[in-house]
Amino acid sequence: MSAVLNIKEYMQGLGVNAKAAASILKAVESDKKNAALIVIAQRIRDNKEQLIVENKKDLERGQMQGLEAALLDRLALTPTRIEAMAEGLEQVAALPDPVGEISDLNYRPSGIQVGKMRVPLGVVGIIYESRPNVTADAAALCLKSGNATILRGGSEAIHSNQAIAACIQEGLAEVGLPIAAVQVVETTDRDAVGEMITMSSYIDVIVPRGGKGLIQRISSEASIAVIKHLDGICHVYIDDDADINKAVKIAFNSKAQRYGVCNAMETLLVSEGIAKDVLPELGRQFSQQGIELRGCPKTCALIPGCLRASDEDWSTEYLAPILAIKIVAGLDDAITHIEQFSSAHTESIVTENYSVARRFLREVDSSSVMVNASTRFADGFEYGLGAEIGISTDKLHARGPVGLEGLTTLKYIVLGDGQIRT
Amino acid sequence: MSAVLNIKEYMQGLGVNAKAAASILKAVESDKKNAALIVIAQRIRDNKEQLIVENKKDLERGQMQGLEAALLDRLALTPTRIEAMAEGLEQVAALPDPVGEISDLNYRPSGIQVGKMRVPLGVVGIIYESRPNVTADAAALCLKSGNATILRGGSEAIHSNQAIAACIQEGLAEVGLPIAAVQVVETTDRDAVGEMITMSSYIDVIVPRGGKGLIQRISSEASIAVIKHLDGICHVYIDDDADINKAVKIAFNSKAQRYGVCNAMETLLVSEGIAKDVLPELGRQFSQQGIELRGCPKTCALIPGCLRASDEDWSTEYLAPILAIKIVAGLDDAITHIEQFSSAHTESIVTENYSVARRFLREVDSSSVMVNASTRFADGFEYGLGAEIGISTDKLHARGPVGLEGLTTLKYIVLGDGQIRT
Repeated sequence: MSAVLNIKEYMQGLGVNAKAAASILKAVESDKKNAALIVIAQRIRDNKEQLIVENKKDLERGQMQGLEAALLDRLALTPTRIEAMAEGLEQVAALPDPVGEISDLNYRPSGIQVGKMRVPLGVVGIIYESRPNVTADAAALCLKSGNATILRGGSEAIHSNQAIAACIQEGLAEVGLPIAAVQVVETTDRDAVGEMITMSSYIDVIVPRGGKGLIQRISSEASIAVIKHLDGICHVYIDDDADINKAVKIAFNSKAQRYGVCNAMETLLVSEGIAKDVLPELGRQFSQQGIELRGCPKTCALIPGCLRASDEDWSTEYLAPILAIKIVAGLDDAITHIEQFSSAHTESIVTENYSVARRFLREVDSSSVMVNASTRFADGFEYGLGAEIGISTDKLHARGPVGLEGLTTLKYIVLGDGQIRT
Repeated sequence: MSAVLNIKEYMQGLGVNAKAAASILKAVESDKKNAALIVIAQRIRDNKEQLIVENKKDLERGQMQGLEAALLDRLALTPTRIEAMAEGLEQVAALPDPVGEISDLNYRPSGIQVGKMRVPLGVVGIIYESRPNVTADAAALCLKSGNATILRGGSEAIHSNQAIAACIQEGLAEVGLPIAAVQVVETTDRDAVGEMITMSSYIDVIVPRGGKGLIQRISSEASIAVIKHLDGICHVYIDDDADINKAVKIAFNSKAQRYGVCNAMETLLVSEGIAKDVLPELGRQFSQQGIELRGCPKTCALIPGCLRASDEDWSTEYLAPILAIKIVAGLDDAITHIEQFSSAHTESIVTENYSVARRFLREVDSSSVMVNASTRFADGFEYGLGAEIGISTDKLHARGPVGLEGLTTLKYIVLGDGQIRT
């Protein structure tokens, strides 16, 4: 009981400090924020050995606790990964600063000028698992966008995260920014998360990064707005008027370029009129790649060795070398299937037909809708955001890859010369 | 128990219908939506007598139940108010359609073009009290922005709301739009609200309009995002470098032009150096207007008859002819006071000092921040939005007056020519 009380007090203390830091950060000029990012990058390079020592403590404990090899790999800090982390900080420093930008400033009939100014959200809470580089990435994006941040990494990475946090706070102090601009939660007690996601007086938004289970739990329990996506059941639809070569290339790349990512295709929809021209070749390429195919009866008739899909397959995010394939009657049927089964992450159509492309773009209600491009492009770097704090499949505030802009909000500004309302 | 089950089924039925309507509405062209709005306006004019008959039922029941005179007045439909409702619909028809607008469409190094398309949110749930004109206003804004809407008015206005809903649905049917585009909840059972604010599979956002109690309850119980403001504790700060004439005019107008509105000033902050030049005159004008003044000790010394403010006054939204006044040391002190007590709705500074104005605009973190203008301008019409569905003091998604744009979201669109990720 007293431990829980202490956790509450500890977390509230972080909240108070973060809010005070946010109040300073919101008006700090870009030069100073960029200087901090560059110093932090240098500190991370300078402390490479120390970071590896601390990381080893996490790895050893992880091995003792029997963590899976994949998780241990994600947890590991190597000289290359540490250098990449430092470069990531420098890249964020090089991005344009969104804060303070004024748009749509127009005179109104009353004589006042009304416009919008982009400003930080305030305090961002990040909850994430295993990969320690998130500590540096997330801190960089929040700092650049003028937000204070509270970082809660997984307990398996606690030593690594604290060592990275020490570099960050040294950098902040060196340029004269409040060290509470970036705080890492120092307890591995799980109650800290419960406290964090309900501290609505101190935290403006929560960004969870990790497995679906973590994100689901946080979304349902948080009393603070959450920027998130639960899963990516992405579709490619090959239209009757598709260029066959593009269709094969895009479908293959959308599935096979990487399996465990949220923007990989999980279901391929093919229009009836073109199925026999693309599916045998695609079936061959997928099988050669070792990808298990699960199709509707018509698909199975066209691809030797294709398994029969069950109803469940249409709503499954495999994150694995498995693909569901369905032959549909055409555009309307494809859109209906997507409406029913998509997780509203990313859908792509392959077609040379202008009117079909135009309808798909307008009517498919997902965070990214594409024509003749691989779903794998749904990514902050590829979209030109520079970096991303995550991807949102929600409709409010931020949708799709979320970069610096998604960590800001627009307030109205009004410039007058003594105007009053009559 | 069975009644509750029936309410649940009934509300879920509205949800299913709304979602189906939204799926059609999202791609309906402006012409058709505008035609519907104009026909609805005509139906409302044609049915003026019927609307007054139905409204009388509500008024009579309200009188029997002892509703306050102010509430009965808000509930009443007069020929003038009915005509205003019809004109409101026509004004929304005349606004530009935000849906489908594509922005920031740029080529990326990979050859894909990435941009954003503005699309409807989907289904909007509106929960409101007494004023039946909200039924028409809210329906118009949602329809124009391509959203289906479920409207839950107060039980005291049920006959009026249903009569207005009948006009709306006739108009929708006449132009061939689904009548489920606008649905009015036909039960006055309070369980309907509880059901509505947790139907996250069917409703994308809830907009509560009414008293603080209603909005607080809905915000804390909803599992759907809520666009709202709880209160408006707005400040005017008169700086040392203010033009005295503008200062007096703006402070007086911000408080006295109307009392019961969220953008009225509730606390006046005056810099020490100018207090003796503005407060005696302002005190005279406010007193003449019958406004009760509650000041800090220094204020009381300058205004005869000013009462001593208690700590509570700084965080009170009076919505009445009462004003709190505090003398502060200058800009920093004013910003600190605002940070502590403001509800982040609207704050205005009166100053001729360029640097002071620039700092106030950047550092005050409210939904509207003004220089030399009355806080009463914080309003969708005055800002040029044409109409507003409400005002948001939250930071995510929409902030300040919320018009058609706030009822939409941006999805990413990607145009390619066969690009794949390497």
